[in-house]
Amino acid sequence: MAGPPVTRADAEAAAVRLAGHVRPTPVIEAGAGSFGVEQGLTLKLELMQHTGSFKPRGAFNRVLSADVPEAGVIAASGGNHGAAVAYVARSLGLPAEIFVPETTSPVKVGRLRGFGIEPTLGGALYDDAQAACEIRATETGALMVHPYDHPAVVAGQATVAREFEADAPELDTVLVAVGGGGLVAGVAAWYDNRVRVVAVEPQTSRCLGAALDAGHPVEVGVSGVASDSLGARQVGALAFAIAATSVAFAVAVADEAIVAAQRALWADLRVMTEPGGATALAALMTGAYRPEPGERVGGIVCGANVDPATI
Amino acid sequence: MAGPPVTRADAEAAAVRLAGHVRPTPVIEAGAGSFGVEQGLTLKLELMQHTGSFKPRGAFNRVLSADVPEAGVIAASGGNHGAAVAYVARSLGLPAEIFVPETTSPVKVGRLRGFGIEPTLGGALYDDAQAACEIRATETGALMVHPYDHPAVVAGQATVAREFEADAPELDTVLVAVGGGGLVAGVAAWYDNRVRVVAVEPQTSRCLGAALDAGHPVEVGVSGVASDSLGARQVGALAFAIAATSVAFAVAVADEAIVAAQRALWADLRVMTEPGGATALAALMTGAYRPEPGERVGGIVCGANVDPATI
Repeated sequence: MAGPPVTRADAEAAAVRLAGHVRPTPVIEAGAGSFGVEQGLTLKLELMQHTGSFKPRGAFNRVLSADVPEAGVIAASGGNHGAAVAYVARSLGLPAEIFVPETTSPVKVGRLRGFGIEPTLGGALYDDAQAACEIRATETGALMVHPYDHPAVVAGQATVAREFEADAPELDTVLVAVGGGGLVAGVAAWYDNRVRVVAVEPQTSRCLGAALDAGHPVEVGVSGVASDSLGARQVGALAFAIAATSVAFAVAVADEAIVAAQRALWADLRVMTEPGGATALAALMTGAYRPEPGERVGGIVCGANVDPATI
Repeated sequence: MAGPPVTRADAEAAAVRLAGHVRPTPVIEAGAGSFGVEQGLTLKLELMQHTGSFKPRGAFNRVLSADVPEAGVIAASGGNHGAAVAYVARSLGLPAEIFVPETTSPVKVGRLRGFGIEPTLGGALYDDAQAACEIRATETGALMVHPYDHPAVVAGQATVAREFEADAPELDTVLVAVGGGGLVAGVAAWYDNRVRVVAVEPQTSRCLGAALDAGHPVEVGVSGVASDSLGARQVGALAFAIAATSVAFAVAVADEAIVAAQRALWADLRVMTEPGGATALAALMTGAYRPEPGERVGGIVCGANVDPATI
């Protein structure tokens, strides 16, 4: 029988590769009563990572643990992953191609251009861009950086939990938002059932919850306020394998609860997040996750690529 | 000869009083190249304090170190200090009167109401509100909480530096924005010349720089983007006395540099500040303060009471 697909040792090795490339991000104790939640809450402010999300961790680890061909790196994403790959390529002086769907907003295209990347249009929707990207990768031989379904990507995201544990070693439970599952898989691989990892998904895009219900990854509908960062139609096979053994369970929150959590993070803590970044907190505010008295709960604020005017 | 007006022991005593009332705020290493600055920079994220600025530290320490009369507490400020006193009063279950000038924006009035305070209009400008507040205090006997010119307030603000040193003990220099001088005095009192404390003021309201030039507090004109939080017409006598011995020097930055620093904090770190909160960073970005090679520089991000849509 094979060992676990991503181990703590993989995360330790990733942390060594990432040193100097990613920022250690701070932790804050929000204190009892914050956000209208009776118990205190410890938050890992990963939104302060380069490019405004945790994504550079996985992307750096993928690239730094591979032999990068002359054609450089390639990825499909108009969102946080695309920005992360563009940032990694610029930092390491590598050529990069980023495929984006035609629906990508001018703001996001501008962000990629800010990193020196002219994005390639790859069809109408994200799946089309990913398909175009895969064809192109076979032509050029460029290193594909998948947004979540690769062991090096998951091991990179696991370094979020490694840092969180170092700064907040007493937690009983950690709440993590889920898109394709790369972050929650990394966090679950790191804690390895020593801490309860609870996955939080929007009710409008719950690919991990549906997979755990079915016993295997299944396609789900995707919509809602957080779909730009969390809207994966199917959880990664690797993330599912790790979650099945190391995530306690998945809960789902309504779009309105996500927006309320965004507003509470600004009102109470002056932290400005995208909807996906506030989703973990929404589980606590709504009671979708109810801690026991005295339970020490942590959450990861994972992204802030938002137009501040919308909060 | 009298000893120093505020000592490290005063700050230690304040920290004991403040425990459980204020949040320890996090520190982040922004890393070389952040904000277009060659050297790395360590930032104390005091904007995450309750009410979005450092002000509750001084206000709590003032109130918790006094015998509060039945009439409760009283202060004049439509801004960060008013919100802090309102927060302190609500937290401790004390009655409070807050005088505000008629120019106070509906947003700030709404913030005071959110803490259960109906503000009292006290004339056209801040000085009028302060005068009306002082008359009222003599009538009711309420405890006056001055925004900066009181030893207990300065000792409370000194706890920002106490925490900063605990989390970032290797700094050579700390940059601090100046309004009436309460924060810079507290920081300077704490470091007591063991670390170079550099005061940063807007060119449009440089009450400390003018006082250091003149050898005593003088009145200055007040205008500009940061005037709502930093626009004091004269530095506090206590702050001046401390700054004269324990602040290395004061530098001034243009309004456009403050706005550029606000934008850089959001772009590079997803930290959203008010103009006053970005003023310390502006000194580094513009070269108004130029560190030596290898010098380890820290800055305090002191407030975030801003409409995010304006960044």
